Amino acid sequence: MAAQLPQQLSHLRDQIDAVDQQMLALLEQRLNLVAQVGEVKSEYGVPIYAPERESAMLASRRQEAEKKGISPDLIEDILRRIMRESYTSEKDSGFKCLNPDLPPITIIGGNGQLGRIFVRMFQLSGYQVRILGRNDWDRATELLSDAGLVIVSVPINVTQSMIEKAGPYLNPDCILADFTSIKEAPVQTMLQAHSGPVLGLHPMFGPDISSLAKQVVAYSDGRMPEKYQWLLEQILIWGAKIVPIDAKEHDRNMMLIQAMRHFSTFVYGVNLTKENPQLDQLMALSSPIYRLELAMVGRLFAQDPVLYADIIMSSPNNIAAIKRFYHSFGEAIKLLDTQDKAGFIQEFKQVEQWFGDYAQHFLQESKNMLQQAQDTVHK
Amino acid sequence: MAAQLPQQLSHLRDQIDAVDQQMLALLEQRLNLVAQVGEVKSEYGVPIYAPERESAMLASRRQEAEKKGISPDLIEDILRRIMRESYTSEKDSGFKCLNPDLPPITIIGGNGQLGRIFVRMFQLSGYQVRILGRNDWDRATELLSDAGLVIVSVPINVTQSMIEKAGPYLNPDCILADFTSIKEAPVQTMLQAHSGPVLGLHPMFGPDISSLAKQVVAYSDGRMPEKYQWLLEQILIWGAKIVPIDAKEHDRNMMLIQAMRHFSTFVYGVNLTKENPQLDQLMALSSPIYRLELAMVGRLFAQDPVLYADIIMSSPNNIAAIKRFYHSFGEAIKLLDTQDKAGFIQEFKQVEQWFGDYAQHFLQESKNMLQQAQDTVHK
Repeated sequence: MAAQLPQQLSHLRDQIDAVDQQMLALLEQRLNLVAQVGEVKSEYGVPIYAPERESAMLASRRQEAEKKGISPDLIEDILRRIMRESYTSEKDSGFKCLNPDLPPITIIGGNGQLGRIFVRMFQLSGYQVRILGRNDWDRATELLSDAGLVIVSVPINVTQSMIEKAGPYLNPDCILADFTSIKEAPVQTMLQAHSGPVLGLHPMFGPDISSLAKQVVAYSDGRMPEKYQWLLEQILIWGAKIVPIDAKEHDRNMMLIQAMRHFSTFVYGVNLTKENPQLDQLMALSSPIYRLELAMVGRLFAQDPVLYADIIMSSPNNIAAIKRFYHSFGEAIKLLDTQDKAGFIQEFKQVEQWFGDYAQHFLQESKNMLQQAQDTVHK
Repeated sequence: MAAQLPQQLSHLRDQIDAVDQQMLALLEQRLNLVAQVGEVKSEYGVPIYAPERESAMLASRRQEAEKKGISPDLIEDILRRIMRESYTSEKDSGFKCLNPDLPPITIIGGNGQLGRIFVRMFQLSGYQVRILGRNDWDRATELLSDAGLVIVSVPINVTQSMIEKAGPYLNPDCILADFTSIKEAPVQTMLQAHSGPVLGLHPMFGPDISSLAKQVVAYSDGRMPEKYQWLLEQILIWGAKIVPIDAKEHDRNMMLIQAMRHFSTFVYGVNLTKENPQLDQLMALSSPIYRLELAMVGRLFAQDPVLYADIIMSSPNNIAAIKRFYHSFGEAIKLLDTQDKAGFIQEFKQVEQWFGDYAQHFLQESKNMLQQAQDTVHK
């Protein structure tokens, strides 16, 4: 094909390459400027994620794009992608320490994937951090008794026993917190095991994030919230969003967000092995939406089964919810068995109503996501 | 906050804004160059999607980025986003007509969402296109008897009857094709209704695509493939990938890709309305992966229930497959009821093995998708 291409085309392509190289040079300049912003922010304790500055900046660029007849979404998508990179590099420049007088921090399970992220964030913010691993309990007095903050970051099925084990070592001023993906039981256990400040945290992300910017950390108050406000603000400085939530409410939401989701994905995978299609063929035929779904299913099975078993089996409420889902599934199959198209449409419309304006919103949002997925899928 | 920010910070931000404005100017230049490429391609009949040129170009830019200490993924993601925009604008410049002597094309159902896309593509390529809508059957002789290509693009549940209705009007040289999302039955019906060339097509995308670039069109040969090779090549010029597949195999794959997927999403939505969580709270707490899933569920319910009912109910094979899934679900629940963590882990590992290298591949791929989803989600 190349030999047949008119010279005109290769000349244009050379010009495009030249433009792209200039773009690369601009990127370099921009990332350098952002690194300097990171240093200033770190010095003054300004959060790395600045939503208002972001929206104002994007709005200006969108306007300018429109004047030039360029799609505003194009420049916005590009700038958002660059900003993601910027958060990643800003985070390396360190963060302001909001509580420099805090005695050492101890993270129980700080060697785990999630624990390690926070060890690093605290260190980048100038705190002294110690790790209490599985085999360090003979040094518990040394590692826990003078700590200003103890965070329990261990698998869900041993969280409560670790809290009970750590409790007696703590001094009354120490803040006791945990990172478990359920909140009601751990917060209760912490309140019983410790007389001082207690805070339940749930970082809503996995270990493969590139920075905390825009990530969600849910929290449930335990006791003496005034003692740990600095910690919540410190997390804000790292770029995360903090979302307060009642522990019971949290667990009810997680039942849907985590347990049910993970379990259906698990079943989907199991069933796929039984149907046993040719994966290559399936992928060649996949539209972006199915490709995305397949990637979401596949990603589960590249991870730790113990983690997922623990999350799903952590509460009888989860199992009850999964059974309700199963029941709904059986009811819906009846519509198929009786070829009840009208019934299907009626239920469909009820769900549409439940979603309200969000249905259209999600259609738009997912359109953008799917186009991006399509951009990046290369087989 | 703004008042407290040191001048240093606002100075840096001004510099960043200046860089971004230069970037916008480069984008303008690049889009103009690409528009010129589009014109040359259209003149010479070169497909708008050129995977080899793309890979070579991206590889060069990645190398140059690495030399500058910039993440190669950053420049690749940006260029892919720009290329998507370019495909959209290239398509407007028209396409080379590969079969200029073809008598008029008639699209039965050409007023529908999918039909309309193809009416436009054929017109942009210089073909004469006519539409036969629901109320035009009194003009069937006029619209069908001299056609060189007739495409049936109607809802799945009336495809076969439309084919049977159209058959007697066609001349023996006419190519008869359809766009239905199942292939075995329509291709059989076309072969019976028409003695000339027959081709089953399945455009694997919805009406909200911005261009055909990289989209998949599956096809199943019917009769006299030599007569419609030009049509497959024409679709390639529009930028789509064409995937040949046996009609039976196609339907087996679609059972998984479409029927089962749509039905589980439907049930998920129905069950969500029963659990009735606060959608706002759920979204505030959602990590990108769940936000993505919620958007994927919500998007279904912003669309036409009849379309989905028809796809799901189109074949007893679909219903049988859905029941097998339901059975797998019930079996998996037994693991939960008996708290059989070891059994869960064992099944999990079997699925991991089934996915093979794809599990890790999907983990990487979805990481990228999730980060992009995170970039664009703004509440």
